[in-house]
Amino acid sequence: MSAGTLYGVGVGPGDPELVTLKAARLIRSADVVAYPVNGAGHSFARRIVADVVSPDADHLPITVPMKVERGPAQCAYDDAAEQISMHLRRGKNVVFLCEGDPFFFGSYMYIHQRVCGSYECEVVPGVTSLTACAAELGRPLAARNEVLKVLPGPLGEDELLRELRFCQSAAIIKVGRHFEKIRRVLRQCGLADSAWIVEAATNPGQKIIALEAVAEGEKPYFSTILVYSGGENW
Amino acid sequence: MSAGTLYGVGVGPGDPELVTLKAARLIRSADVVAYPVNGAGHSFARRIVADVVSPDADHLPITVPMKVERGPAQCAYDDAAEQISMHLRRGKNVVFLCEGDPFFFGSYMYIHQRVCGSYECEVVPGVTSLTACAAELGRPLAARNEVLKVLPGPLGEDELLRELRFCQSAAIIKVGRHFEKIRRVLRQCGLADSAWIVEAATNPGQKIIALEAVAEGEKPYFSTILVYSGGENW
Repeated sequence: MSAGTLYGVGVGPGDPELVTLKAARLIRSADVVAYPVNGAGHSFARRIVADVVSPDADHLPITVPMKVERGPAQCAYDDAAEQISMHLRRGKNVVFLCEGDPFFFGSYMYIHQRVCGSYECEVVPGVTSLTACAAELGRPLAARNEVLKVLPGPLGEDELLRELRFCQSAAIIKVGRHFEKIRRVLRQCGLADSAWIVEAATNPGQKIIALEAVAEGEKPYFSTILVYSGGENW
Repeated sequence: MSAGTLYGVGVGPGDPELVTLKAARLIRSADVVAYPVNGAGHSFARRIVADVVSPDADHLPITVPMKVERGPAQCAYDDAAEQISMHLRRGKNVVFLCEGDPFFFGSYMYIHQRVCGSYECEVVPGVTSLTACAAELGRPLAARNEVLKVLPGPLGEDELLRELRFCQSAAIIKVGRHFEKIRRVLRQCGLADSAWIVEAATNPGQKIIALEAVAEGEKPYFSTILVYSGGENW
């Protein structure tokens, strides 16, 4: 019996229609679907494709502890890779569901790294939250010969400042509790008036707010900040 | 009679299966499909969805002169926007096909800008060539709290150097004739051994080559350079 294949499949930003034809085909025919779940047992990635997964598929929910120290997460990835490998050894195909795209700041890469030396792995790219945010906002992410920077919110204030000074186009991800620090930096760079915050893009409850319209002390959850200072001349 | 809607629809990097369910639905039911064509009358975006477009749809090919001065292109966008508006006025829905994603370095934005004040416009995000390149390469674009920079190849050598020094993750687009300049800068930054060049990702003729394996004087066409120096510890 030949071994199965692991597919790391991007399921896009949330709208079930923003899944690709290839992702839908692979998910529909998967023997096993694996997906990250949070502490409450909820999986955002699985919810996106709830209507696509076959009722006959085995489910493999994967809990990864979200802590600053990386040891516990590494152990969780080791365990998950071992469970996935067990299915692959038995000739089952495993589809690992990834929000957005598997290789764009996702956790699938830690599984891929552990499995790809022993079994066939294929990555299916997906629509990222970045381009979904830009689409919902109705403004380009970047144009012509502009530099586009993708900056994680947990970066230090100095590093954010260094990257955002003289920057025309940026997307700031993982905003959460870093919101006020980020807004301070954007104000310092003269970019606060060219910035929008997009919450839950393409999902129920989506909100789009100009950065300066967010009340002091508010912490926008699950959001991305887009900066586009290309002016009216896009 | 109510006016039609303009949909700017991302059709992904080339594999017809990397089109989203939403894009496929809109393209299938479009009254008019518009798309950019090159000087030879060829449209890469239309080819991707050739099997999806309805045989009853009207076709609106749009030729944009590729010149350094922007005047001729602006005129072409004015003309295209006028033709699209004519269809919208008559109550027809128009789908504008965009390679990759409409708001990620695409030309759709120039049409959107001209039409969105007068008619309803909706943007449907797509899979970009960036995440497709990373998927085919089998390496992440970016992870954890890394900064990811998207840099157009035509940037000056000084600017490329400034952005790539101390950079962990980058994608360099629009490489073409700028290849040797880019390689020079990556060597200067110690990143040339962490860089791969991906040609025609997910398309027939796809090629993936380590940057340093490209022969001097060769000019890789239609390619993206991915730099990922995150080491073995992704």
